[in-house]
Amino acid sequence: MNTQTFDQYLTDNHDRLLEDYKDFLRQPSVAATGEGMTEMAALVARRLATLGATVQIVPTEPGAPPVVWAEIGQGDKTLLIYNHYDVQPVEPLDLWESPPFEPTIRDGKIFARGAADDKGELVTRIHAIEAWLKTQGPLPFKIKWLIEGEEEISSPHLHGWIEKHRDWLVGADGCLWEFGGFDDQGRFELTMGVKGICYVELHVQGVSHDLHSSLAAIAPNAAWRLAWALNTIKGPDERILIDGYYDHVRALSPAEEAILREMPFESEKEAAFKAKWGIDSFVTGVTGYDAIKRLFFQPTATICGITSGWQGTGPKTVLPAKAMAKIDFRLVPNLTPEVVVDLLRKHLDARGFNDVEIKLLGGYRSELSDVNAGIVHACARAAERTYGQKPVKVLLSPGSGPMWSLSSFIGGVPVVCAGIGHPDTRVHSPNENTILANYYGGMRFIGALIDEFAAG
Amino acid sequence: MNTQTFDQYLTDNHDRLLEDYKDFLRQPSVAATGEGMTEMAALVARRLATLGATVQIVPTEPGAPPVVWAEIGQGDKTLLIYNHYDVQPVEPLDLWESPPFEPTIRDGKIFARGAADDKGELVTRIHAIEAWLKTQGPLPFKIKWLIEGEEEISSPHLHGWIEKHRDWLVGADGCLWEFGGFDDQGRFELTMGVKGICYVELHVQGVSHDLHSSLAAIAPNAAWRLAWALNTIKGPDERILIDGYYDHVRALSPAEEAILREMPFESEKEAAFKAKWGIDSFVTGVTGYDAIKRLFFQPTATICGITSGWQGTGPKTVLPAKAMAKIDFRLVPNLTPEVVVDLLRKHLDARGFNDVEIKLLGGYRSELSDVNAGIVHACARAAERTYGQKPVKVLLSPGSGPMWSLSSFIGGVPVVCAGIGHPDTRVHSPNENTILANYYGGMRFIGALIDEFAAG
Repeated sequence: MNTQTFDQYLTDNHDRLLEDYKDFLRQPSVAATGEGMTEMAALVARRLATLGATVQIVPTEPGAPPVVWAEIGQGDKTLLIYNHYDVQPVEPLDLWESPPFEPTIRDGKIFARGAADDKGELVTRIHAIEAWLKTQGPLPFKIKWLIEGEEEISSPHLHGWIEKHRDWLVGADGCLWEFGGFDDQGRFELTMGVKGICYVELHVQGVSHDLHSSLAAIAPNAAWRLAWALNTIKGPDERILIDGYYDHVRALSPAEEAILREMPFESEKEAAFKAKWGIDSFVTGVTGYDAIKRLFFQPTATICGITSGWQGTGPKTVLPAKAMAKIDFRLVPNLTPEVVVDLLRKHLDARGFNDVEIKLLGGYRSELSDVNAGIVHACARAAERTYGQKPVKVLLSPGSGPMWSLSSFIGGVPVVCAGIGHPDTRVHSPNENTILANYYGGMRFIGALIDEFAAG
Repeated sequence: MNTQTFDQYLTDNHDRLLEDYKDFLRQPSVAATGEGMTEMAALVARRLATLGATVQIVPTEPGAPPVVWAEIGQGDKTLLIYNHYDVQPVEPLDLWESPPFEPTIRDGKIFARGAADDKGELVTRIHAIEAWLKTQGPLPFKIKWLIEGEEEISSPHLHGWIEKHRDWLVGADGCLWEFGGFDDQGRFELTMGVKGICYVELHVQGVSHDLHSSLAAIAPNAAWRLAWALNTIKGPDERILIDGYYDHVRALSPAEEAILREMPFESEKEAAFKAKWGIDSFVTGVTGYDAIKRLFFQPTATICGITSGWQGTGPKTVLPAKAMAKIDFRLVPNLTPEVVVDLLRKHLDARGFNDVEIKLLGGYRSELSDVNAGIVHACARAAERTYGQKPVKVLLSPGSGPMWSLSSFIGGVPVVCAGIGHPDTRVHSPNENTILANYYGGMRFIGALIDEFAAG
């Protein structure tokens, strides 16, 4: 590619492209409330059409936001791209320094809901492809682009949609995921997978209604039952105790372990984490590589909430009839949400906790790409060209997403997360932002990636 | 005594006395809010003065409801009486069939807040003493009467008041407690003690603020810490696991065990309890005498509430910074709130739970009278005379109250609970009521008790 003409195009069209970015941010599209979803899907489709793409707005379920599907370019290879056009709710509004849907530039950053997650990423890619087409000619391979509208509400219809349109997706040679960016030391990260998640509620119903606590000597207490059941799930040594759980956790390959061992986690960085969290040590006292391995390749069982009985001020002598805990299990290969629920049910039953009801609220499988896939190397080379540094490779993002549906489910397309985020991006929070320099760099990275992915 | 003239007086003065009862109920006196406390103390004092008693309104702490102290009668013996003039809040108001401070008679019952707890008991005793004085002459012994205004908020100042005025109370030969009544089979109960209580909050602060749950692999979780700490306190076999706990539980004496063994707990009664609570069995599967012994002579550890993290609808992937549990320990002799807090602290520390903070919200010691004390036998004889049945003796009320301060603390005055309640009295609830027949019977019981206590 001719990077000079590419870069010059970005410079020459700076104001118009930035205004285009702002147009995306001005359009609310809150999946949780439904606000602006139809308009946003249409805006995305129109903009992709201006690139010369074949664009379809394809329904998911009646009343739910549709998927925007675009195809552009020709060639032997196919790159699948995944983005989403929905955003998180904006509350609490009073903490925003400028209105969430009025994009505002301050201190070299653009602030708005979606400035990063995920309109920032989406616009960066659109603008880079425009610059390629205007300065380098046709794309050297085919891009298939899936832009959904329900990522922020856990993609309830995406997998079903992919099942229905599986033929459109199979055969892609690589997939570029929706997020990514830089760590707190300014190092560019390439992430090759995501942990899965299984989110459940455990419900206990003891006596039929709250009783006076003086009856506790003979009346069963739902809160105690829940505490005892929870205790069988994970103990103070942080090991998950569900029977057979670790049988479903596959070992690291030598290549994967090498990647984990190369991840930088300096003692200053560890100390900074601990200081920020107000703690003296991580769980089980792990440090260095062991902490990295836990964070990026170990499953978790997290109590996200517990509720039972009297929670107000002062004493109230009540024996609670009900108790509930919310637990999220972060999954690594080959744990799946279905396996977790099945093992947990058997585990509880085997210990006499048949009275503890499990409600599955949702889940994603884990997905981990081949760390030596072409798309991984192409991204690494593109990063070196753009940022002048070898990227940090991250095995599994500790977060979760519907990656399995766009990868293993469609035959094993390797996926890489590479984006424009930074540690203070504030996704999901007030004052979400993107550093404009990362947007500019991100467009050049995408240009280099087109070049490198085509090269093989 | 001449029961004929006594009873005739009650009949002749029926309407006036019932109106007097209603006057007590019309005056709000909610200790939790302070509503009407001064007026109620004055009303009680005025009414006691009409009996010829020496009455004092004695402060507790500035701004807090005072104690009404009355003395009446002369003789070698002294009977101490404990009542309270405060009531529970009336909420939820919409569940009352008639306004809580407008006493209303329906179906042979008088409905109002305080109709039983404790204005019903107090008025019954006042009216009985009036009838005695008017028909039998002077009281055959001295009555010292302590009527506090903070029982419904755990008597925060009563013990201090008694410490200050200890001389007034010492030397009493027996004490008549504020509550009592009939079981679901219409059997009159005499209760000779109360369980104590130690109410604590356990607080865990993990990380300094809620984190995204993807960090759970290395960040400590306050909710898990709390669950693990709770699990060391009591296990699924319902045994309290605090080190040294049962060393402080004294054994039953043969006389006490005999009383427990005589308590009726028919299989129909057990079945009715279970049906009402919607359970198949009591904890640990106890039944019959074992259930009685648990309920009336075993300590408890009850989770009254737990709160941590996200409790709303749906999944929220949060790692909670804080967790809190409220626990009440019902105490038997010789456990005290101070012993429990001390043992619990050492127990948690010994297991590495130094991070679990214990907040003592309040407590009472247990109190158990000599089951062969004169006041017990006098009450039993008075019950047989009045109700034509041997009373059921109850060792320890499973509930709690400041009995220790009026008994062991002042040298071991034996206490008996004997009152006018019934199983559907609804104390602390909407539609609190007293069966009017129990009020009439209660006045005759007090008359007989004066006679029997004087006789020895």
